[in-house]
Amino acid sequence: MINVAIIAIGDELLIGETINSNSSWLGQQLTLLGMNVNHSVVIADDEEKIISSINTLSKINDIVITTGGLGPTKDDITKKAISKFFNSELVEDKATTERLKEYMSRRGRQMTDLHYEQAFIPSCSEALKNEVGTAPGIFTKENNVLYFNLPGVPREMKSIFEDNIIDILNALKSEVTEDYFVYKTIYTTGIVESEIANRISYLDDENENIKFAYLPSYSGVRLRLGILNSNLVLNKEIFKNTLQKVLGELETFVIQENLPLLNAFVEHFTNNNLTISVAESCTGGGLGSLLSELPGSSKIFSGGFIVYSNEAKMQLLEVKENTLSSYGAVSEQTAIELAENCRIKLGTDIAVSITGIAGPDGGSDEKPVGTVWIGISDSNRTVAKKFIFLKNREANRELSKYTALSLIYRNLKYNIEI
Amino acid sequence: MINVAIIAIGDELLIGETINSNSSWLGQQLTLLGMNVNHSVVIADDEEKIISSINTLSKINDIVITTGGLGPTKDDITKKAISKFFNSELVEDKATTERLKEYMSRRGRQMTDLHYEQAFIPSCSEALKNEVGTAPGIFTKENNVLYFNLPGVPREMKSIFEDNIIDILNALKSEVTEDYFVYKTIYTTGIVESEIANRISYLDDENENIKFAYLPSYSGVRLRLGILNSNLVLNKEIFKNTLQKVLGELETFVIQENLPLLNAFVEHFTNNNLTISVAESCTGGGLGSLLSELPGSSKIFSGGFIVYSNEAKMQLLEVKENTLSSYGAVSEQTAIELAENCRIKLGTDIAVSITGIAGPDGGSDEKPVGTVWIGISDSNRTVAKKFIFLKNREANRELSKYTALSLIYRNLKYNIEI
Repeated sequence: MINVAIIAIGDELLIGETINSNSSWLGQQLTLLGMNVNHSVVIADDEEKIISSINTLSKINDIVITTGGLGPTKDDITKKAISKFFNSELVEDKATTERLKEYMSRRGRQMTDLHYEQAFIPSCSEALKNEVGTAPGIFTKENNVLYFNLPGVPREMKSIFEDNIIDILNALKSEVTEDYFVYKTIYTTGIVESEIANRISYLDDENENIKFAYLPSYSGVRLRLGILNSNLVLNKEIFKNTLQKVLGELETFVIQENLPLLNAFVEHFTNNNLTISVAESCTGGGLGSLLSELPGSSKIFSGGFIVYSNEAKMQLLEVKENTLSSYGAVSEQTAIELAENCRIKLGTDIAVSITGIAGPDGGSDEKPVGTVWIGISDSNRTVAKKFIFLKNREANRELSKYTALSLIYRNLKYNIEI
Repeated sequence: MINVAIIAIGDELLIGETINSNSSWLGQQLTLLGMNVNHSVVIADDEEKIISSINTLSKINDIVITTGGLGPTKDDITKKAISKFFNSELVEDKATTERLKEYMSRRGRQMTDLHYEQAFIPSCSEALKNEVGTAPGIFTKENNVLYFNLPGVPREMKSIFEDNIIDILNALKSEVTEDYFVYKTIYTTGIVESEIANRISYLDDENENIKFAYLPSYSGVRLRLGILNSNLVLNKEIFKNTLQKVLGELETFVIQENLPLLNAFVEHFTNNNLTISVAESCTGGGLGSLLSELPGSSKIFSGGFIVYSNEAKMQLLEVKENTLSSYGAVSEQTAIELAENCRIKLGTDIAVSITGIAGPDGGSDEKPVGTVWIGISDSNRTVAKKFIFLKNREANRELSKYTALSLIYRNLKYNIEI
């Protein structure tokens, strides 16, 4: 097993100003490459702490990756720290200087001293090309440990990893032939964690080389099966059988082909030449944003209406004044008028409306915060369904979006009634 | 200084299936309370590793907080691990059992054995009420170290922290009177990191008790000033002076009152009784979603149009067929027609349009991926401005949204031309 330590450097991570998405992304990539992420730590912008963390973790891992602290400003001290750690002075990497000059001139910007400094790396190291920013990555091999130092800006970190590091790690992997965990993720929708456990926990006890994990999120519960490939042939068979049983027990709550809900939704619409439009109140455009998140979504998504105010509901989608005054904006009737009129105006196969009380204010005894009506219209009928989600604004908006997708997807895929 | 270690438990965090937002949130809360987040680590769902991490970190911190592994399923092993660590058996907490019965009956669900097990905590610990889920938090005090074990589901973790832990930590803080860092964050917009450094780096050298950090994100660069309050009166004066100088150097790139761009934007519109509507192509509703993110946004945001397809641009906002065929959907002319017609249809003070090539496909030599036109219309004039962002779809959509807000905000606030 190739063990990896990830060190994210930056006060902003410790004090929570920035969410540490880099370590997650790296964890994902390394796992895909069959590596074992053994340590993931966050440390302060502090030379001593950087050196001691790298030192400690390099003794018990094959690879140490740091992110952060390579930028052009004074709080970026990773380079000085590793230069001390490797006991190796910073020298200019001519190729990086050339690249920086080009990078700046293409953008019509001047090369400053701060930029020039970026070309200096420890003399024992190699520069890794950064196609989307100024700071190069730094690669060092010492005593059979590989060290990678990457910038903290996510797009730069990702670009350097993809362009340079994957190849290095693949080469390393081919030299090693030990055990590692293989994972398979099953995405579910419309079912809670404890209900999944009720249905499948007996399988969890059948084999100790198999691990289950339940990961709830707004878009549904992901179920992760892990298998130790210590005895590849046998385990593969057990894995396959367990997977089959799980899929059987979870029936129509499973999203086809282990795709996340959004991807499965877009794929189903694309394959069946279906189109969709949206009429959004409390989500303010969030469902449209979600539906257009993936490349190629223009095949299925034409657009829609953001009807946040009552006036917009009347002006843009001709919701009747009487409907709003008699039943309110958050009602079955309003959801139905929104969805139906949206579908007709945009000529899509399906239209979905969302109208609800996201909170924290605006709730009543009759319609508490979290009350959301989701309307769905196709050429045969328009229906609306009521949900009472939670007290939290963000949660209510997220759950509304994913519940709308889930209702439509399970209806189309498994003929489950809305 | 009160030192805190945060331990996030879960394979899904190490392998990157889930982003570790909990540790960031806790870091933020603890920093606000004046605590020093000294360690933040992620560990696997592994009893031995959980025990050894808690053990190691409790020796060098005053507080140890874990998140994750308290759920009802078999992969949730934190409770067993801490019961071993404290050498204290799991016993039923009657109050939690009562709460769980109530919680389930309110939701019309049955209490299962899995739920009942949630009421068991180590005999040396106290249960902390969870108002939004089933697993209680666990609080233990031993040898002057405080231990908090919280569920990994973010809303449950946050709710337990806010309802129970803040009071406990405030009481603890009043017993201690040592030094700690105080932070002040200045949000900027429309300026890059290296340009900020050019303007203010000389201030960075003036006093060693002051630390600067530059934090770029899609919404702009945050500049963080940190001051060690070892000598409170003197440092406060230096801090104030430095802050004044920074604000002077950064001029109109500073967002008023150190608010994030979105909050400042909504506040400015609210205070000036202004309203806004949106016409979105490549962002698909994302700007509307952003504008309705904060409670109370209905005062300023009425709605808009998601015109993802060319047909939607013509049908919903009467963009001329000739405009689309002569100039294309991504053009100054289209952006202007979208913004102007949107403003007129919805009767808002300002309307903003976004039309661009988010990528990865659809680019050409003339209009590469990342080309985005942003149109802004008010009763006096409609203008559009062209940007060439990046090659990444997500980045282009995010930058489009925040750049639109930035253009309008700096125009209204500082009279900067669009």
